[in-house]
Amino acid sequence: MKRFILFFACLTSISLVAAQEVLNWKDNEIVSPIVNADNTLTISLFAPDAKKVELTGNFLYAGKDTSDKYADGDWSPQLMNKDETGRWTLTTAPLKPEFYSYNLIVDGVKITDPKNIYTVRDIGNTYSVALVGGGVDGLYAVKNVPHGTVRKVWYDSPTAGIKRRMTVYTPAGYETSNRRYPVLYLLHGMGGDENAWEELGRATQILDNLIAEGKAEPMVVVMPNGNISQEAAPGEGSSGLVTAALRYPKTMDGNFEKAFPDIIQFVEKAYRVKKDKANRAVAGLSMGGFHSIYIALNNPDAFDYIGLFSAAFSQMSKDGDRLSPIYQNIDEKFKTLCKKSPKLIWIGIGKDDFLSQDDEKLRAALDKESYKYVYLKTKGGHTWRNWREYLTIFAQKIFKH
Amino acid sequence: MKRFILFFACLTSISLVAAQEVLNWKDNEIVSPIVNADNTLTISLFAPDAKKVELTGNFLYAGKDTSDKYADGDWSPQLMNKDETGRWTLTTAPLKPEFYSYNLIVDGVKITDPKNIYTVRDIGNTYSVALVGGGVDGLYAVKNVPHGTVRKVWYDSPTAGIKRRMTVYTPAGYETSNRRYPVLYLLHGMGGDENAWEELGRATQILDNLIAEGKAEPMVVVMPNGNISQEAAPGEGSSGLVTAALRYPKTMDGNFEKAFPDIIQFVEKAYRVKKDKANRAVAGLSMGGFHSIYIALNNPDAFDYIGLFSAAFSQMSKDGDRLSPIYQNIDEKFKTLCKKSPKLIWIGIGKDDFLSQDDEKLRAALDKESYKYVYLKTKGGHTWRNWREYLTIFAQKIFKH
Repeated sequence: MKRFILFFACLTSISLVAAQEVLNWKDNEIVSPIVNADNTLTISLFAPDAKKVELTGNFLYAGKDTSDKYADGDWSPQLMNKDETGRWTLTTAPLKPEFYSYNLIVDGVKITDPKNIYTVRDIGNTYSVALVGGGVDGLYAVKNVPHGTVRKVWYDSPTAGIKRRMTVYTPAGYETSNRRYPVLYLLHGMGGDENAWEELGRATQILDNLIAEGKAEPMVVVMPNGNISQEAAPGEGSSGLVTAALRYPKTMDGNFEKAFPDIIQFVEKAYRVKKDKANRAVAGLSMGGFHSIYIALNNPDAFDYIGLFSAAFSQMSKDGDRLSPIYQNIDEKFKTLCKKSPKLIWIGIGKDDFLSQDDEKLRAALDKESYKYVYLKTKGGHTWRNWREYLTIFAQKIFKH
Repeated sequence: MKRFILFFACLTSISLVAAQEVLNWKDNEIVSPIVNADNTLTISLFAPDAKKVELTGNFLYAGKDTSDKYADGDWSPQLMNKDETGRWTLTTAPLKPEFYSYNLIVDGVKITDPKNIYTVRDIGNTYSVALVGGGVDGLYAVKNVPHGTVRKVWYDSPTAGIKRRMTVYTPAGYETSNRRYPVLYLLHGMGGDENAWEELGRATQILDNLIAEGKAEPMVVVMPNGNISQEAAPGEGSSGLVTAALRYPKTMDGNFEKAFPDIIQFVEKAYRVKKDKANRAVAGLSMGGFHSIYIALNNPDAFDYIGLFSAAFSQMSKDGDRLSPIYQNIDEKFKTLCKKSPKLIWIGIGKDDFLSQDDEKLRAALDKESYKYVYLKTKGGHTWRNWREYLTIFAQKIFKH
C-alpha cells in the first residue's frame, strides 16, 4: 500500500504538471455543481480577486416561479454571493428534473465552471451541464440497465461526392444477437451535427432506458450530419480544429435530402437491420424536421413513421439559381405520401416556438389530404428541453407492430 | 435566400438564448487560438476588467529554447499582454508539431479558452487544445483518408460482476468487408479511463493515418477501462455526473488482470477478429504498461506483441490482505513467457520519467531470460506527448507476418 501511495504521489507530482501550481486549499475544497436533496443546484467558484461573478443558465432561481415544467429557464445573469474567503455561490430554486446548461461570467468573461468536468457544445457555445433528478422521468440518466453501443462511423456518399461521419446507436445485445432491427433516422437542427442528438439530446440514455423498460422496441438509431457540405462535426473532419466562429452551413437547398438514400444504403449494408417501410422511421428537430418531411415526401414508400419536432417547413433556399426538384410539386407529393398511409406522422412544437407559422402550414398540407397526424403542443420554445421530451414520446410510438 | 437568412436570424435570436446577451463586438471578433504560418500559436482573451491574465500550457514561449523536440513544455504561467481595447494576447515561440494543451488564468481563476470549442479532460482537469502541424509527422490530424469506426460498447464481465464500457476502434472498411482482423488491446494509465487513448492519445487519427499510408496493418484496437471497480468513465456510468474531486480508484491489486479474459472473450465473439497469439497485441502506458506486462505474464500463450510505454512494474497493492496470485511467482512467469518467444516486447520511456527504476527492474527481468526486447529511450517525462509517439512506433511493428 505504501508503494501504491508513493506511485500515486509521483503521478500527482510529475505527470500532472499542469496541476502543480499550489492551488489555494479553499479552491481545492470546492465542489461544483452540487445537486442538493431538494433538487436545488448549488454552483460555486473560488475567485477572491473577481469584482463580479454571475451565473447564467436555463434554470430558474430562488424566489421565481418554477411551476412551469416546460419553461425554457431564465438565462439572464444572476449575481452570485461572495463570502469572506473569496468563494462565490448561488443556489437555484428547486428544479424540475432536467439536463441543465449554464455558464459563469467572471468580470464579464463567460466561462464554463472550472470545477465541473461535464460540458456540452451547442454550435459555438460550450456550457457546463448538470443532471437534476435524472431528467424527464429519469430517462436522461445512465441507469444500471443493458446499454447499447454508440459508434462514429464514416460512410461513402457518392451523391455528395465525399465520405461523411455519422453516429449510429445499436441497442443492447446487438453485438451478440443474430436478429435484425428496425431503424430510426434521427436528424439534428441548423448549426448542429452528427454529435448533437447524442450530446445535447441524451438520445443514448433515452433509448437505453426506454428499451430496458420495454417501452420502446429495440432499434438502431442513425444520426447523420445534416450539413451536406460538411464531412463531419467541427474538429472531426479534415479541416482540422477550426476555431474561427462557427457558421451555419447552407443546408436547406435540397442536397441533403437528395443524398439521403446513400445513408440508407450504407446502413442497410453495414448493420443487421430490417429493410422495409414498416421498419423505418425518420424524425428530426427544426431543420431536421424540415429534412424529415421532405425526405418522406420524396420517398413515400420508405418510412412508416415520421417525427417532426419544432419542424421548419418553408425555409428552403435555392440550389444555385434554381429550386431543387426535392421542393417542387409539393401538393402532389403530399397527396401521394398520404395515400400510402404511413402509420404515424407525429408533430410536436412548443407554444412559444418561433416556427409556429411553419407548423400551421405543415398541418394544413396534411389536413388537406385528411391525414390524421398526431399533434402535441407543449409549453416552451425552440429548445433541446422540448426535443429530448419529444424523442421520449416518439420513440415509444414506433415499430409497435 | 431571403427566407434562409430570416430563418438563420430567427434561430440566432431565439434558439440560442444563451448567446443573446449583446456581447461586445471586440469580444466577438476574437479568434483563439490561431495557429500562425510559422507554427507559433496566438492565444487571445477579451477581458477588459481583468487585472491579470496568464497563459499556462505545455508549449514554450518566445525567447525560450525550443530545440528539444521531446520537451514536456513549460507549464509555468506566462503573463499575457493587454492592449487598450481590453484584449489580452500571447504568441508562443515557433512550436514543434504536436497536440498542445493549455489553460488561461484570469485573476487567479483557471479556465479553458472561451473562444476554443476543443477541450480534453485529463483526470479532473479540462484543457483547451490546439493541433500544430498535424502533430508528430502529421499523424495526429484527421486527414482525407479512409476512416475507421470508434464505438463505445458495454461488455459483461462475469469476473468483475458488472457490465463495463470500453472503446473499440475498427479499421476503415470493417463494416463492409468480410475479413478478420488482428487485435491490439491498448490500456490507459492511472486516473484515465476508456476514453483516454481516443481523446488524449489521438489513437483514432494515428491508426487511420498509419493504416492509410500502409505503415500499419489494419487492426481492431480495444481500449477498456483499467479501473476494475468502475463501470465507465466519469459521467458515462450509473453513478451519474459525479463532480466531487476525481480520485484514483485502487486498481493495481490484480483484479483488472484477473478479469481481462472476459474482455478477450467478448471481443472475439462480438467482432470479426483473428483469435490466435500471432494476432493479439497488448500495450499500455504507465499503469497500463503494468497491466500489460502482468496480463502477458499470466497469459503467456495469448500475445505475440507486448508494448510497455513508461510502464510501472513494482507498484502492486494487496487485494484485501493478500497479494493477488497475478503478482506471484514472477520469476517463473518471466521464464515461461520468454521461452514462448513472443515476437516483440517493445519498451519506451522518457529519460526524465519518474518510473526509471521500474524500467530498470523490468528490463533486468527480461535480460535474465536473455530475451531480446526492443528499447527506446526518448527525451521528456511521463507525458502523453511521449505515449502518442510510442503508439505511432509500436503500431507499425505489430502483425507484420
